[in-house]
Amino acid sequence: MKKKAAIVGAGVMGSAMTWPLSDNGYEVSLIGTHLDGEIIQSCKDSGFHPRLHRHLPDQVTPYFIEEIETALNGADFIVSGVSSAGARWIGQTIGPIIKPESKVITITKGLELNDNGELIILPEVIRGEFPLEIRDGVSISAVGGPCIAGELAGRRQSCVYFGCREIETARFFADIFRTDYYHIFITNDIVGLEIAVALKNAYALGVGLANGLLKKQNGPDRAGAYMHNMGAALFAQACIEIKIVLECMQANSDFAFSLPGAGDLFVTSQAGRSVTLGRLLGEGKSYTQALEELAGKTLESAMVIKKMGQAIPMMEKNGMINSDDLPFMRLIVNLILHENPLEIQFDHFFSDVII
Amino acid sequence: MKKKAAIVGAGVMGSAMTWPLSDNGYEVSLIGTHLDGEIIQSCKDSGFHPRLHRHLPDQVTPYFIEEIETALNGADFIVSGVSSAGARWIGQTIGPIIKPESKVITITKGLELNDNGELIILPEVIRGEFPLEIRDGVSISAVGGPCIAGELAGRRQSCVYFGCREIETARFFADIFRTDYYHIFITNDIVGLEIAVALKNAYALGVGLANGLLKKQNGPDRAGAYMHNMGAALFAQACIEIKIVLECMQANSDFAFSLPGAGDLFVTSQAGRSVTLGRLLGEGKSYTQALEELAGKTLESAMVIKKMGQAIPMMEKNGMINSDDLPFMRLIVNLILHENPLEIQFDHFFSDVII
Repeated sequence: MKKKAAIVGAGVMGSAMTWPLSDNGYEVSLIGTHLDGEIIQSCKDSGFHPRLHRHLPDQVTPYFIEEIETALNGADFIVSGVSSAGARWIGQTIGPIIKPESKVITITKGLELNDNGELIILPEVIRGEFPLEIRDGVSISAVGGPCIAGELAGRRQSCVYFGCREIETARFFADIFRTDYYHIFITNDIVGLEIAVALKNAYALGVGLANGLLKKQNGPDRAGAYMHNMGAALFAQACIEIKIVLECMQANSDFAFSLPGAGDLFVTSQAGRSVTLGRLLGEGKSYTQALEELAGKTLESAMVIKKMGQAIPMMEKNGMINSDDLPFMRLIVNLILHENPLEIQFDHFFSDVII
Repeated sequence: MKKKAAIVGAGVMGSAMTWPLSDNGYEVSLIGTHLDGEIIQSCKDSGFHPRLHRHLPDQVTPYFIEEIETALNGADFIVSGVSSAGARWIGQTIGPIIKPESKVITITKGLELNDNGELIILPEVIRGEFPLEIRDGVSISAVGGPCIAGELAGRRQSCVYFGCREIETARFFADIFRTDYYHIFITNDIVGLEIAVALKNAYALGVGLANGLLKKQNGPDRAGAYMHNMGAALFAQACIEIKIVLECMQANSDFAFSLPGAGDLFVTSQAGRSVTLGRLLGEGKSYTQALEELAGKTLESAMVIKKMGQAIPMMEKNGMINSDDLPFMRLIVNLILHENPLEIQFDHFFSDVII
């Protein structure tokens, strides 16, 4: 019998997952959301994915969202490839179709709050939308780590973590996806994994502030001095704060400086939408002005920052952090949520270290 | 009475330290080594530092090495601004001149081995060259963290640690150098600080391998896939291994992902000599061939890697690490010391995480 996988969401990352699956002998249904109509039409017409700039592997069959029931039929598992804004939608959409023992793995990066104002990870958001009768049975796993979709599709070397509360399910998925270019490590600390990869998007925006401050001063000075020292300090403070949040969530704080934290932040801080938004804010533009320049772009970093802006008062109230903890996150929250002017208090960032 | 400082070594970093000192009211003697003759001549002629591309602050007086006794006269403290190759030289040179209660701070990044083949930091190397009668009295401090010299001289925001076994001496120096652009935090863990900043040079070479491997495959593929995922994985593994070495040295392992580790590695991994050497090795050139291309350039990263190549067997023998620990450092040691062909075993890098 043919091995069969289904991916819901035909954006770059969901679609890139078809490469390791195909290479491992899977027939893959790639189901576009209602936003992916043009992508799916192109894939149906010619097999060409217009955003990945590649022809999909032969074993992939594209489907419109209206065909989802057919497409999911017989699939061994489901990959959720939607963006964080689609987390509730995917839960509502696949919930009524899937079986109680189904396995789902999500590639989405983001954070939400529960009814108590506490941080929760997106797999929990998805699960919360499932019908009650399957909510506890369906196992949800997640992918995290530095993985640009176009590179995975190009079979470039990539290292990631697969996480699931049930480690055997993480292992199940790792064994399915692992190739000689897609190196997968597993963890049962899905909370730590998801928090780290969500926060790195937020902090990449913060690291990007240095680019904007440099531009505001008309670039390097006449002797060629950039602001790399500032960027490095921001990067280091980001790693430190990711660790603090992980500790608050009783997660594995080592993820702050492994693939999901420092590694993912390294690549995200060098280019992309989050850094661009940070640059615009660093130049002195308000969040509203910056958004106008970036019209039409999904800004997952800003969404995570807004959630952190709501979570921080609750974390303080619960005694998880003090009022002077997370100064860098508070700074970017103030930029995004309150549109305060940018002022970086570097003296509040690091601490003397006495051992 | 005028406050007076002396800096020995007129390279970019030693010379950049004249800015915060001058801004804080110090008269500064800048003493070139025997390698800095042309720099000092230019500074004497016109005040222009040819490698920093700036005129030195007015309060700086340049001196040739032959004038060192005059130059050190009355100095409240001495900054060692030589490269790691000059660590023994500086100890031998200032040792006979300075007083038993003198304070010295060094900006040099590097590692050495003691007679037992164990890793030691450069302040210990300098101290070892002092005459016996002052060896225990002179206090040696060190500077570490992401600080490109030209940016410090340009009064760009920079955050660093000052370390000394005697925390009060670290505080003494921090109070002298601190400005509104040079943010200084202090630590008594000078070993952790120095190990982290030395290792980041070595690992920046390692991160640079991805650039070379990309070039070897003629750059991005037709769909535009680079090798950023690989670079990010190498970066993350570097942070993890710096932490392991710090733990072996009973140092503060948090430095692995603060300013001295992840922060400094972030800026060092993006450009500079270490990354360039890494790129050449990634392209498939041998270390000998790469050295030829880089003729005349100081390669502190290669020196650190060679020392680590000698230290690792001793660390294993002492039970500090296992034979499969530090796979990334072993890989770059093999490239530099043994000129083995490059092969990266990503599956040996990260571990499953079960909490």
